[in-house]
Amino acid sequence: MNNPLKVIRETKPLVHHITNWVTIYDCANMTRVFGALPVMAHAPEECAEMTGISSALVLNIGTLTSEIINSMILSATAANEKKIPVVLDAVGVGATKFRDEMAAKILESVRIDIIKGNYSEIAKLAGENAKTKGVEATSIDADPEKIAKELAKASSSVVVMTGKEDIISDGKRVFIVKNGHEQMGSIVGTGCMAASAIGSFAAVNPDYCEASRDALCYFGVAGELAAEKSKGPGSFKVNLYDEVFNLSDEKVKSMVNFEEK
Amino acid sequence: MNNPLKVIRETKPLVHHITNWVTIYDCANMTRVFGALPVMAHAPEECAEMTGISSALVLNIGTLTSEIINSMILSATAANEKKIPVVLDAVGVGATKFRDEMAAKILESVRIDIIKGNYSEIAKLAGENAKTKGVEATSIDADPEKIAKELAKASSSVVVMTGKEDIISDGKRVFIVKNGHEQMGSIVGTGCMAASAIGSFAAVNPDYCEASRDALCYFGVAGELAAEKSKGPGSFKVNLYDEVFNLSDEKVKSMVNFEEK
Amino acid sequence: MNNPLKVIRETKPLVHHITNWVTIYDCANMTRVFGALPVMAHAPEECAEMTGISSALVLNIGTLTSEIINSMILSATAANEKKIPVVLDAVGVGATKFRDEMAAKILESVRIDIIKGNYSEIAKLAGENAKTKGVEATSIDADPEKIAKELAKASSSVVVMTGKEDIISDGKRVFIVKNGHEQMGSIVGTGCMAASAIGSFAAVNPDYCEASRDALCYFGVAGELAAEKSKGPGSFKVNLYDEVFNLSDEKVKSMVNFEEK
Repeated sequence: MNNPLKVIRETKPLVHHITNWVTIYDCANMTRVFGALPVMAHAPEECAEMTGISSALVLNIGTLTSEIINSMILSATAANEKKIPVVLDAVGVGATKFRDEMAAKILESVRIDIIKGNYSEIAKLAGENAKTKGVEATSIDADPEKIAKELAKASSSVVVMTGKEDIISDGKRVFIVKNGHEQMGSIVGTGCMAASAIGSFAAVNPDYCEASRDALCYFGVAGELAAEKSKGPGSFKVNLYDEVFNLSDEKVKSMVNFEEK
Repeated sequence: MNNPLKVIRETKPLVHHITNWVTIYDCANMTRVFGALPVMAHAPEECAEMTGISSALVLNIGTLTSEIINSMILSATAANEKKIPVVLDAVGVGATKFRDEMAAKILESVRIDIIKGNYSEIAKLAGENAKTKGVEATSIDADPEKIAKELAKASSSVVVMTGKEDIISDGKRVFIVKNGHEQMGSIVGTGCMAASAIGSFAAVNPDYCEASRDALCYFGVAGELAAEKSKGPGSFKVNLYDEVFNLSDEKVKSMVNFEEK
Repeated sequence: MNNPLKVIRETKPLVHHITNWVTIYDCANMTRVFGALPVMAHAPEECAEMTGISSALVLNIGTLTSEIINSMILSATAANEKKIPVVLDAVGVGATKFRDEMAAKILESVRIDIIKGNYSEIAKLAGENAKTKGVEATSIDADPEKIAKELAKASSSVVVMTGKEDIISDGKRVFIVKNGHEQMGSIVGTGCMAASAIGSFAAVNPDYCEASRDALCYFGVAGELAAEKSKGPGSFKVNLYDEVFNLSDEKVKSMVNFEEK
């Protein structure tokens, strides 16, 4: 897709989130600042109906409960029927047995189009012996590109592994996104915002692998621009929103930095 | 009321919120920055008691569940007994059947003094054939001023319809507030913050129609001042808080922009 | 401890929070900006296991429910077994009977190493006749230093009373922290962030009384530096994060301001 940001801003897709209570505002606000429309709705009585009027669904298990997982499955079932993309941000998988089990339950119950996590979260989902320190990645033994590609193949999903470099694979293609800045790791929530960006881009681009790559390039470019102007994590976050808002497809084209393997 | 901001800052009314999990921080913080004291408490065991020591109650159904609606009714019942103002921000009415039903349940169970929503939310509550795109207004067929006035008459409540221009009616008077800036729509949460402002002003002014008008004028003036200095939605939000904090009744008087119809 | 900030930033302790929905982002983000790793997890199925991989536990009853209190007790039991510090931020005690009862239930069920609150919250916990206006302190009759010291003795906990001056006691020592700035009270959440700072410092220093004192000194110094540069509560909060991030043990040493009584 040539001008994804232009398309998002013209079509304003509704992106339904069932997410965590820590970064829920930033998920919503980043979606809005990219140009899509966020909606958060987790009640079992309405979540499937809300998904039914949406163009993408973003699930994030950062502060999961068994009730929330139930709502996620109801909404993802509706999304699968409507054939809109479902993103799962597997926050904290590898930290507790409950997170591992609930992530497995979601993956067995519904189709997830884009599985996202940091290196240890994705490694754990891929069956590796990985531990997550709360929601923070720890180093993994295996080759991350291989893990992403093989999990993508096994699950028929796009896999997004975020870290210093982001790895995106649909089982055939592997993209390495080098945009971004270390300051993005200095605040809580950039990973969650990235999932919202992916949902927004996938809402308008049926090639979910390309959409995920684009979302992380655009978000990463904004991070680079924001870091230049910032004195710390407070001003960085403010500038990140300003820079995303002021992105254009043209500006990103001159700064985009990924390779295909 | 001549100097509502001065009165809020001197009397520091406690404004109890039962609100959504997306903008709960901004509801609390905007209340505080206007000079009132926010408290958020939704447990059924305490919510009525907390309302009992408060001077206003703000309900917002943005991320409703049936349990939260139950707590809202408990608190609003206590507010009705104490004769303190109750604001209902009807977020997302017109998007799902559950929201429509729960809003109706609240309106049937307790007295709501100020009903607030965007154009399609209020139109839906007024019985019009309106749809809300998640929590975003869509265009409506009917005349918004007429809708506001007639819903106000039918419900004996003040009705606040927010949009490019805000319409406020108690069934007799109709105020059109023209303060505000389009940047206020570039971030998530300004609508919710406006409800908190209304709660803070209504806590000190028994003329709820005037209090709602004043709250939106003051908030809109701050938005105008913030927009001048901002480079995007990140800095706009920071500046919005600074400008609300630095408002005075005198400063607003020179910038206020509404008409009475 | 000579260089607590250096130790936090080198060892990156995991600080598990079960906290309120208003300031949950700021609790997490302040923990991260101090250099520790936050994790928020409240599901009863996982909370004890998450505590088991953590180095401190921070409990905050700002938006308590009976289910959340149950999870807090499960996690604190795990923390007691692991002998990691447990901080209780007694938000709103003195405002409703339910808060008083739930705080008492926690204190009876598990060992709390650091009890934190504002003047009226701590006075109420100490058995004084105190009222809290929502989550805002009201004036108390008794001598706050005496209350802090006696509650510390009676509970064998460190007691932290925050206000214009912060009082910290372990029943023997009494520290009065004078760092801080009145602008810290102009936004919602600084009290909750202070509890996260205390949890982060206590995670690396077994002298919890000294750790609490240090946390409040460091946080207060950042507040003083931020206030100098701010135009209101919006920019103050941004600057507060920047200043905490840019603190060093050396910088704080030249500005620290407490006395021991």
